[in-house]
Amino acid sequence: MLQDLRAALGPQGCLTGADVPEAARSDASRTGHDLPLALLRPASVAEVSAALAICHRHGVAVVPQGGMTGLAGGAQPQAGQVALSLSRLAGVEEIDGEAMAMVVRAGTVLEVAQKAAEAAGFLLPVDLGARGSCQIGGNIATNAGGLRVLRDGMTRDNLLGIEAVLADGTVLCQMTKVVKNNTGYDLRHLFAGSEGTLGVITRAVIRLRPLPGPRGTVLASLPDFAAVLRLLAMARSALPGLSAFEAMWRDYFTCSQGHLPHTVLPDPPPFAVILEADEGPALEALLEAAFEEGVITDALIAQSFAEARRFWAVREGLEMDAAMPGLINLDVSLTTGRLDDFAQACRAALQASFPGAHVSFYGHVADSNVHVAVHVPGASEAEVHEVDAIAYGVVRDFGGSISAEHGIGTLKRDWLGYSRSPEELAAMRAIKAALDPKGLLNPGKVLPE
Amino acid sequence: MLQDLRAALGPQGCLTGADVPEAARSDASRTGHDLPLALLRPASVAEVSAALAICHRHGVAVVPQGGMTGLAGGAQPQAGQVALSLSRLAGVEEIDGEAMAMVVRAGTVLEVAQKAAEAAGFLLPVDLGARGSCQIGGNIATNAGGLRVLRDGMTRDNLLGIEAVLADGTVLCQMTKVVKNNTGYDLRHLFAGSEGTLGVITRAVIRLRPLPGPRGTVLASLPDFAAVLRLLAMARSALPGLSAFEAMWRDYFTCSQGHLPHTVLPDPPPFAVILEADEGPALEALLEAAFEEGVITDALIAQSFAEARRFWAVREGLEMDAAMPGLINLDVSLTTGRLDDFAQACRAALQASFPGAHVSFYGHVADSNVHVAVHVPGASEAEVHEVDAIAYGVVRDFGGSISAEHGIGTLKRDWLGYSRSPEELAAMRAIKAALDPKGLLNPGKVLPE
Ligand SMILES: Cc1cc2nc3c(=O)[nH]c(=O)nc-3n(C[C@H](O)[C@H](O)[C@H](O)COP(=O)(O)OP(=O)(O)OC[C@H]3O[C@@H](n4cnc5c(N)ncnc54)[C@H](O)[C@@H]3O)c2cc1C
Ligand SMILES: Cc1cc2nc3c(=O)[nH]c(=O)nc-3n(C[C@H](O)[C@H](O)[C@H](O)COP(=O)(O)OP(=O)(O)OC[C@H]3O[C@@H](n4cnc5c(N)ncnc54)[C@H](O)[C@@H]3O)c2cc1C
Repeated sequence: MLQDLRAALGPQGCLTGADVPEAARSDASRTGHDLPLALLRPASVAEVSAALAICHRHGVAVVPQGGMTGLAGGAQPQAGQVALSLSRLAGVEEIDGEAMAMVVRAGTVLEVAQKAAEAAGFLLPVDLGARGSCQIGGNIATNAGGLRVLRDGMTRDNLLGIEAVLADGTVLCQMTKVVKNNTGYDLRHLFAGSEGTLGVITRAVIRLRPLPGPRGTVLASLPDFAAVLRLLAMARSALPGLSAFEAMWRDYFTCSQGHLPHTVLPDPPPFAVILEADEGPALEALLEAAFEEGVITDALIAQSFAEARRFWAVREGLEMDAAMPGLINLDVSLTTGRLDDFAQACRAALQASFPGAHVSFYGHVADSNVHVAVHVPGASEAEVHEVDAIAYGVVRDFGGSISAEHGIGTLKRDWLGYSRSPEELAAMRAIKAALDPKGLLNPGKVLPE
Repeated sequence: MLQDLRAALGPQGCLTGADVPEAARSDASRTGHDLPLALLRPASVAEVSAALAICHRHGVAVVPQGGMTGLAGGAQPQAGQVALSLSRLAGVEEIDGEAMAMVVRAGTVLEVAQKAAEAAGFLLPVDLGARGSCQIGGNIATNAGGLRVLRDGMTRDNLLGIEAVLADGTVLCQMTKVVKNNTGYDLRHLFAGSEGTLGVITRAVIRLRPLPGPRGTVLASLPDFAAVLRLLAMARSALPGLSAFEAMWRDYFTCSQGHLPHTVLPDPPPFAVILEADEGPALEALLEAAFEEGVITDALIAQSFAEARRFWAVREGLEMDAAMPGLINLDVSLTTGRLDDFAQACRAALQASFPGAHVSFYGHVADSNVHVAVHVPGASEAEVHEVDAIAYGVVRDFGGSISAEHGIGTLKRDWLGYSRSPEELAAMRAIKAALDPKGLLNPGKVLPE
């Protein structure tokens, strides 16, 4: 098999043994340990197809790898499996200004594609912290969310066309730039979010948007969660350009701010919200109305980019991550109106088992998405697993999603049944078997055995 | 089988023989002739499941029926098949203002759902001319487009959750209200646009939007198609609230206006565009800039709702339909920048075979969607078929979609291969076989035999 692969891909395209870089073991979850049998680096769609056909003939499993920034273990190989990196299949092929579409190869680093769009006068509406390393193909395979979901949706919502290669090497090409296309089943959405288990994404057509105008950034103080919901409703109808609405529960704000060199709010309110929208009178009128109604008790309007960055630093909590080793960050979705009920129930459940735990909440409230930051000083691996089990159990009781953005991979696989029914899991397995009957594409990921 | 069905659904739920209404034969394409063996009218999800399980046991094909407004023949039964109408499974179950989501049964008439949303202070962002009869389930099954695509997307883009029943009666329930949910394969998008061939949709969660403010409606005159594209680019970046951008080629404008009692533009320009956006200074500034650049040669701003209706009457061309019996309306998508090249090639190809044909173009340019209105006086059925073949052949040559909105059903089935490759068709068949191994759900629709 390796001979065939070397012949098809050339020496640069098929690394084995000591030539396989350490980085091929693990994604950003840092939970992968095995080196793959080989690291394939095809440089064209034809080479991806040839490589998959060879592995298929030999019955060897293939693990697609993008930028390895995933947080669910999805791109991590097991010993004996072959890893297939898209890194050499990179580059923007075309920017079509009239169609507002970019034709791009899967291995293109997100930031490279963003800059190409910007240079042409457009916004590529997918953005996340990992932009400097994650790849367009990985973004699609994980249906990445990120910083622009409120305004522009998830990655799948910005996908016009796709090209993907099935486990046996068959190339499916639906590289259309059109917005409307009702010609049978939609393959884009099958591959988006499938985490490398249905096909290797090789190219895509991504929708572009107009570049946004100047943003206003506000940090508002609110007395309770009802006020958060009310401010959200007001903002949604008054500010068509609303692009961020991030809430922090007091515990989170206090803890995150405590690890920062600067103080934004010396006496944090029960809830703080960062709101971003088009600068201008509509934003100011909204704040005035909210203040008069008692929905907000105070509001800071960032007077500079640096001040906006200081608000966001509290929200991002990177220093908190650094100062609290072993901090667990869960990423779940729940019906918006019940987010605070969930927070209370989840905190109570976790502290019942771990009385010393620090549990705090923050997140994209407008997208029904909340993060749970849990710190159990000195927790063992088994205890960390127990934290997941307890928190996801509460998510299940609330009918929520155990993975808002990061996918299932291997790390959330045991709990997939908390968000999807046995009938849904059976339907997913039927689809997997239909497109990959031998089960060779990223086996063991997403679907529990 | 009929006994079992009557026992499961009650006398109201299972009509046979003379009790089956004529309307069960044909959708709005008026091409259906057969009465089904029975018309099932389940009133709950459990009854849909029971009915499908019974038909599955007996190996009898089932054709889902919504409001029968489809234009592709998708809901039309053949003799010996059973029709399953969702009409009794109707009603809005919940409007969740915080989640901005409506929980609604599939048989709910679109307009009923729209009014319920409006009464609660929200916009249901799916809208089309058939709103008074088409159903939410039919809108999802066809992934309907309509009047709000430019701003809010197709039906699938407004779908948060879905419940559907497979051919064997298995109920798949993913009735989530959350925007972000990366937990395995997305079943919403599998059923959206599958035209009743993969499952019977029973309920859905539809995304709501804020009610839009007052609209400004403009009818602009343009010298050529390059100007149309330039105006579109200007409007996209200057008007975030842009909600319509409809172009009419001169032939279409002249012909449609000629059948109307009023004259809007006595001397129609090469291209006319109807543009709708938020009323206000941004819209006026855009028109001024476009005029100064020579992009538009004239612009009428509607001074009343009645005047806006007069602009739209030209675009809708209903009187043209009435005055030209046998008028063929094709609905295709092409890369935006090439729409006029396509129009010229398509007209030439049609007039080469039908020298007397009147061929004209209009459509949703911003959505890469154009309609072709073809009139061949006295054409036979075979000649109409030939018109389709010629026009879709040109679409294929341009790499476009033979069905932007209306789906494939039976009427476009012969040309599906013009827009989808043999590999894609094979993948669709594999998915169909995975979810409906006996091939009993709406057989013969979408996929060519
Ligand atoms: C600092 C940081 C911030 C982050 N912020 C966010 C965020 O805001 N929102 C969010 O959603 N995620 C976030 N993530 C997670 C991660 O960046 C995303 O999941 C990203 O989309 C993964 O892209 P990648 O190219 O690194 O994929 P990888 O990690 O290489 O792979 C991820 C999965 O996709 C599959 N895959 C990769 N490429 C392909 C392909 N071409 N074809 C088929 N399958 C493929 C892999 O097999 C694997 O299952 C963040 C991660 C970090 C480290
Ligand atoms: C005046 C007029 C204007 C129109 N304008 C537009 C437009 O602007 N945009 C557009 O896209 N379409 C338009 N259409 C076409 C049509 O209205 C849409 O396709 C609509 O979505 C069909 O809904 P329906 O309930 O009538 O479905 P039906 O015609 O009953 O069925 C359509 C297809 O969906 C399937 N189906 C129906 N209900 C279900 C269900 N619950 N579960 C599974 N399968 C189901 C059927 O089997 C069939 O294949 C228009 C039609 C008319 C007559």
